[in-house]
Amino acid sequence: MTTKLTEKARGVYIIAATPFTDDGALDLQSVDTLTDFYIRSGVHGFTLLGMMGEAHKLAAEESIEVVKRVISRAGDRQVIVGVSHAGLENVRRLGHEVMVAGAAGVMVAPPPGLKGDDGIYNYYAQVFEALGPHIPVVYQDYPQATGVYLPPSVFERLVDDFEQLVMLKHEDAPGLAKLTRIREGEKKPGRRRVSILVGNGGLYLPQEMRRGADGAMTGFAWPEMLVQVYELFAAGKAEEAEDLFDIYLPLVRHEVQPGIGLALRKEVLFMRGAIRSPRQRAPGLSLTATDRAELGSLIARLERRLAASGQHKLAAE
Amino acid sequence: MTTKLTEKARGVYIIAATPFTDDGALDLQSVDTLTDFYIRSGVHGFTLLGMMGEAHKLAAEESIEVVKRVISRAGDRQVIVGVSHAGLENVRRLGHEVMVAGAAGVMVAPPPGLKGDDGIYNYYAQVFEALGPHIPVVYQDYPQATGVYLPPSVFERLVDDFEQLVMLKHEDAPGLAKLTRIREGEKKPGRRRVSILVGNGGLYLPQEMRRGADGAMTGFAWPEMLVQVYELFAAGKAEEAEDLFDIYLPLVRHEVQPGIGLALRKEVLFMRGAIRSPRQRAPGLSLTATDRAELGSLIARLERRLAASGQHKLAAE
Amino acid sequence: MTTKLTEKARGVYIIAATPFTDDGALDLQSVDTLTDFYIRSGVHGFTLLGMMGEAHKLAAEESIEVVKRVISRAGDRQVIVGVSHAGLENVRRLGHEVMVAGAAGVMVAPPPGLKGDDGIYNYYAQVFEALGPHIPVVYQDYPQATGVYLPPSVFERLVDDFEQLVMLKHEDAPGLAKLTRIREGEKKPGRRRVSILVGNGGLYLPQEMRRGADGAMTGFAWPEMLVQVYELFAAGKAEEAEDLFDIYLPLVRHEVQPGIGLALRKEVLFMRGAIRSPRQRAPGLSLTATDRAELGSLIARLERRLAASGQHKLAAE
Amino acid sequence: MTTKLTEKARGVYIIAATPFTDDGALDLQSVDTLTDFYIRSGVHGFTLLGMMGEAHKLAAEESIEVVKRVISRAGDRQVIVGVSHAGLENVRRLGHEVMVAGAAGVMVAPPPGLKGDDGIYNYYAQVFEALGPHIPVVYQDYPQATGVYLPPSVFERLVDDFEQLVMLKHEDAPGLAKLTRIREGEKKPGRRRVSILVGNGGLYLPQEMRRGADGAMTGFAWPEMLVQVYELFAAGKAEEAEDLFDIYLPLVRHEVQPGIGLALRKEVLFMRGAIRSPRQRAPGLSLTATDRAELGSLIARLERRLAASGQHKLAAE
Repeated sequence: MTTKLTEKARGVYIIAATPFTDDGALDLQSVDTLTDFYIRSGVHGFTLLGMMGEAHKLAAEESIEVVKRVISRAGDRQVIVGVSHAGLENVRRLGHEVMVAGAAGVMVAPPPGLKGDDGIYNYYAQVFEALGPHIPVVYQDYPQATGVYLPPSVFERLVDDFEQLVMLKHEDAPGLAKLTRIREGEKKPGRRRVSILVGNGGLYLPQEMRRGADGAMTGFAWPEMLVQVYELFAAGKAEEAEDLFDIYLPLVRHEVQPGIGLALRKEVLFMRGAIRSPRQRAPGLSLTATDRAELGSLIARLERRLAASGQHKLAAE
Repeated sequence: MTTKLTEKARGVYIIAATPFTDDGALDLQSVDTLTDFYIRSGVHGFTLLGMMGEAHKLAAEESIEVVKRVISRAGDRQVIVGVSHAGLENVRRLGHEVMVAGAAGVMVAPPPGLKGDDGIYNYYAQVFEALGPHIPVVYQDYPQATGVYLPPSVFERLVDDFEQLVMLKHEDAPGLAKLTRIREGEKKPGRRRVSILVGNGGLYLPQEMRRGADGAMTGFAWPEMLVQVYELFAAGKAEEAEDLFDIYLPLVRHEVQPGIGLALRKEVLFMRGAIRSPRQRAPGLSLTATDRAELGSLIARLERRLAASGQHKLAAE
Repeated sequence: MTTKLTEKARGVYIIAATPFTDDGALDLQSVDTLTDFYIRSGVHGFTLLGMMGEAHKLAAEESIEVVKRVISRAGDRQVIVGVSHAGLENVRRLGHEVMVAGAAGVMVAPPPGLKGDDGIYNYYAQVFEALGPHIPVVYQDYPQATGVYLPPSVFERLVDDFEQLVMLKHEDAPGLAKLTRIREGEKKPGRRRVSILVGNGGLYLPQEMRRGADGAMTGFAWPEMLVQVYELFAAGKAEEAEDLFDIYLPLVRHEVQPGIGLALRKEVLFMRGAIRSPRQRAPGLSLTATDRAELGSLIARLERRLAASGQHKLAAE
Repeated sequence: MTTKLTEKARGVYIIAATPFTDDGALDLQSVDTLTDFYIRSGVHGFTLLGMMGEAHKLAAEESIEVVKRVISRAGDRQVIVGVSHAGLENVRRLGHEVMVAGAAGVMVAPPPGLKGDDGIYNYYAQVFEALGPHIPVVYQDYPQATGVYLPPSVFERLVDDFEQLVMLKHEDAPGLAKLTRIREGEKKPGRRRVSILVGNGGLYLPQEMRRGADGAMTGFAWPEMLVQVYELFAAGKAEEAEDLFDIYLPLVRHEVQPGIGLALRKEVLFMRGAIRSPRQRAPGLSLTATDRAELGSLIARLERRLAASGQHKLAAE
C-alpha cells in the first residue's frame, strides 16, 4: 500500500516499457523482471499506460493486468497510471479502477482539438469533477503529440482552483523557459508549488533540474543514470551531475529518435536482461543488423567513457 | 443470421448514432428504437463503431454490447463494425469477436503515420494476415481524419492481392476524381469490381452515384432521403434523385459542420422520436437556444419544400 | 480614390481570382475584364492577395501590379489587400505600399504556431505597431488553414485596445456560434461593433446573415447571388434571400470542394466570359472531361431552377 | 566563379544565419564578417535561403542581395540557394536569377500537400522541367516541416530519370535507416551515387557519416567542429571524429531545441564576433537572462572539456 501522490513527489518515475513474448503475447514474467530491474536501478516511482510506448496496443483487460502486476511488486514506490481517454466517463471509470488497485495518482493529457485558454481550463475542470476530489492528478503537457499548448497562466488557474492537481509532467519543446516561468509564478503568495517531472527522454535533464524540476518521468534504458543525476542534484552537486549525464548523452540522444527510439530502448532492456524479448507488438519497427551494430558501438563507447571517468558499473547490469 | 459482406453490397449502410441517457449512461432501449427507426427508413445495412460519432467514448464492453444489440434487431440487414486499433492484435481480437457475434464484415482505417505507398500496402497486408482470409474487410478512406492519403494504385494492389477486401468506404476530399479513377481501373481484365459506399455526410451523393458509387455509408438524420436517392438512381432516375437530394441539401450541409454536426444530428433523431435524449457523452458540444431555433427554421423550410414538391411525409416521421 | 475601411463596411467584398494566360503569364487584360465582371455583378468591394487562390504563386512585383490594376478600375469600391507575411517588416512594407496605391485597408492572418491566447494578442499588437494607427486592419480568422483558433475574448481584447481593427473575416468552422458570441459581446457598453464578413465559399451565408454578419468575403463564381442575398437580407426579406441561396446551393457546395474548387471557379469565370483562360499557374489541378460534364450538368440544373423560380438571368451573364 | 554542384560534393555546406542590426535592418556588413567567419572555420560551401532561419522574413530584393553578397566573398566555395516556392514559375525565375549570380545549384523542398508516391515524383518532374537540364538540384527532405515523406524508391526514380538531381539534403527523422537504404540502392548497376549532406543540426552526424553521408548541411554555431568531424572521417579516423563530436554534443543538443534554437545560434555567433547583433527580425524569440546564463555555463563546460581533451582553441574564436 503506497501513499497518494502529492506536490512533494520527486525523483525518477520511470515510464515502464511493456514486454511481449516473441509471438506478441503480453509477457507478465518479464513485467516482473523489468519491475525488479527498475527497482534495482533505484527509481523512485513508476508511470504506466502513458502516451508513448505500447500501452495503446493493449486490450483493456491487459492494461489493468499490467497495472496490478507492477503495483504488486513495486513495494512502497508510487505508481502513476495514465487514464487519458476520449470520453470523460472512461477517464472516471479507469481512474477509480486503478486507484482501487493501489495507484498513487493518475495522469491525464488534453485531447486534441481543445480550443483557446478556456477550452483547456474547462476540459480539466470536467476531468476533476469526473474523478472527484480524492484522486491526485498529473497534467501531461506534451504538445508535440496532443497539439495542445498549455499556457503557464492556464496551468496556474488550474493549480489555484483544484487541489488535486499535484504534478506537471513537463514535456513541451521548447520547454526550458516555461519551466522557469512556472517556478517564478509559484512565488506568488498563496500559490502551491507543484511537483514537476520532465520527459523528452531526459534530453535536457541537467538544464531542467537547474531550473527547478523535481526529477524525471521518462523511460531511458539506463535508469540508473537518471537516478544518479537526480541524486547528485539533490546533493547540490550540479556540475558532477551534468558530467555524468554528458557521458550518457550520446545514448540519450540516440534513444530519442522518433519512430525507432522504442525499438532501441527495448533492445537495450533485452541486452541488459530485464526482459525476455525486445519484440514490439505489431505494427512496430524492428532493428536491422546495421542498427544493432551501431547500438553496440555506442554502448562500447559508453563503457569506455564510464571506465575512463572512474564510474563503476552499476548493480543493475 | 446475415450473410457475409461481398463486393456486391449496395444501398445505404447507415452509420448509427450512439444514444445515451440524460445522465450519460449507454441507453440500450434507445439503441433499439433507433435501430427500428433506421429500419423503417429503409436502410440496407448498418455500420457501427466507425471513426466518427461517439464510439470512442464507449468502454470496451459497452462497444460489444451495442454491436450485439443492433445485430439482434437488424434482421437480415448486414452490420459492418469498425475495428481500427493502434495494435494489430486488438484488430484481430475485436474482428473475430464481432464476426462471431454476427457481423457481416469489419472496417479498418489506416493508423496515422503510415509512410509512402508501400507503408499503406504493408499495413493492410498485416491486417489481412491478422484477420485471416475469411473476414470481409472495408477500407475506410478518410484522410481528413487519418492524414493518410490512399493512392488509387495502392488500393488496386490491395484489391488484386487480397480477396477479403470487398469494399471502399469513400470519404476522401476532393474525392470525385478518385472515385472515377477507381471505377476506370476496374475495367482492367481480371480485376474485381468492389463495392464503394460514400461518406462525408452525403454532401456529394448525387455526383458520386453518377460516377459509380454503390450507395452511401453515412449518418444523415433523414436516412429515408439517402434511401430514396439510392433507389431512384438504381431505377435509372438520376435527375429525380438529384431533385429530391437538393431539397434536403440545406440540412445535409448544416449537419456536416465540423464540431457541432453530431449535436445537430442527435437533436433531429431526438425530435423525430428515434432516441430518448439528444445528449452526448462528455466532453461534447450542446446546442444553444439559437442553434435550436435555427435548426427548427431549416426543418420548417424543408417541410415546405417537401410539401411543394409533392413528396409525402415518410412513415418514419 | 476610395475611403478607408471602417466598422461600417457591409455587402460583398469579392475575393478576386487571378487570371493567367494559357502559357502561365499574368493576364492583365483579364484582370480588367474580371474586375468589370465583378462590378457588373454588383459587388461592394474587392479583396486581393488573400490566403486562398493563387496570389502566393505571384512574384512580388506581380502582386503589386495586380493590386494597382484592380484599384484603378474599381472606382469607389473599396479594395482590401492581404499582407500576411512571416516577417513583420514585410507586413509593414507591403501594408504601406498598398495603402499608398489606394487600398482601403489590409487583411492579416495569424502565422502558424502562435501559442495561447496571449500569443495571438501579442502578435497582433506587434502588427498594429508595425502598421501604425492609420491603416485599417481586417483579422482573417481561418483556423482550418492557419491552425490558430481565435477565442472571442481575445478578439474582444484586440477590438477594445486597437481602433484600427475594424473587421473580422469570419471563416472558422464551426463558426455560427462564434459569430453569435461576438455579436452578443458587442452589447457591452463602450465596445465597438465591428464589421463581420463571412467566407467558407458562402456555404452558410443565410445562417450567418441571420446571426449578424454584414455580408460576405468570398469568391463564388456567381457573385450576383451573393449580392442579391445580401440585399434581400438588408431589405428584411430573409426567407426570400434563403430561397434564392438554396437555388445556388448545389453549386456553392460543388465549389467548396478542397483541392479542385479553384479549378471549378475559374472554369465558370471562363465560361461566363470574365477571363480568357481557366488555367491555373503550376502546380495546379486541371479538370477532366468528366469534371467538365458534371459541372455543365449542375449549371443546367441551376438554370432550370432559376427559370422555374421566375428569377431573371442576370446582366453579368 | 565557382563550379556547378555535382554528385561529388562533400564536406560542410554551412547554412548561413541572416544578420540584422539592432533595429531590424538587413546588416550587410555582418553578412561579410559572418561569411569570413565561416570560411575561417573551414567550411566547404554555403547554403542560403533554406527553410529554417530567417530567409522567409526577407523581402524579395533583400534575398537576392544576400545571395550576391555571400557569393562575392565565398571565393571558390560553392553556394547552394533555396528556391522553394508555391508557384513553379517563381521557382524557375529565382532559380535562373541565382544561377546567373553565381550559385552552384539550387535546393527545392516539396510543397505541403503532395499526395502519394506519384505526387512527389510528378512535382519534381515539373520542377526539373521548369528549371531546365543545366541547373543542379538538391532535394531537401525535411518531412517534419513539409509533411511530405520521401520514400527511397521515389528518390531513386528521380535520380534515375533526372541527371540534374545531384544531392539529397537528408533531414528526415528517423533518418538513419533511410540513409543506409539509399546507399544500398545505389549499388544497383547503372544508378548514380549522389551526394548526401545531413541536417537536423548535426545531432546524428557521426552515425550518419558511418552510414555513408558525405558531410553536413546545417548551421551549428561552431562550424569548425563539423569541419573537423568531416575531415577526421575522411581520414578514416571515425572514433576520433566521434570523440570530438561528443565533446560538442551538449551544445549541439542545446541548439536543436525548437523555437529557441535560432536565438541561441545567433547569440553564439554574436559572442564569437561573427555578427554585430544577435537580433532576429520580428516576430522572433529573444533570450532571457536565465537563457544567457545557461548558455554561458554550457560554453564554459565545453571549453573545459576541450582543454581537458587537448584540443586547441580554433582560429575562428
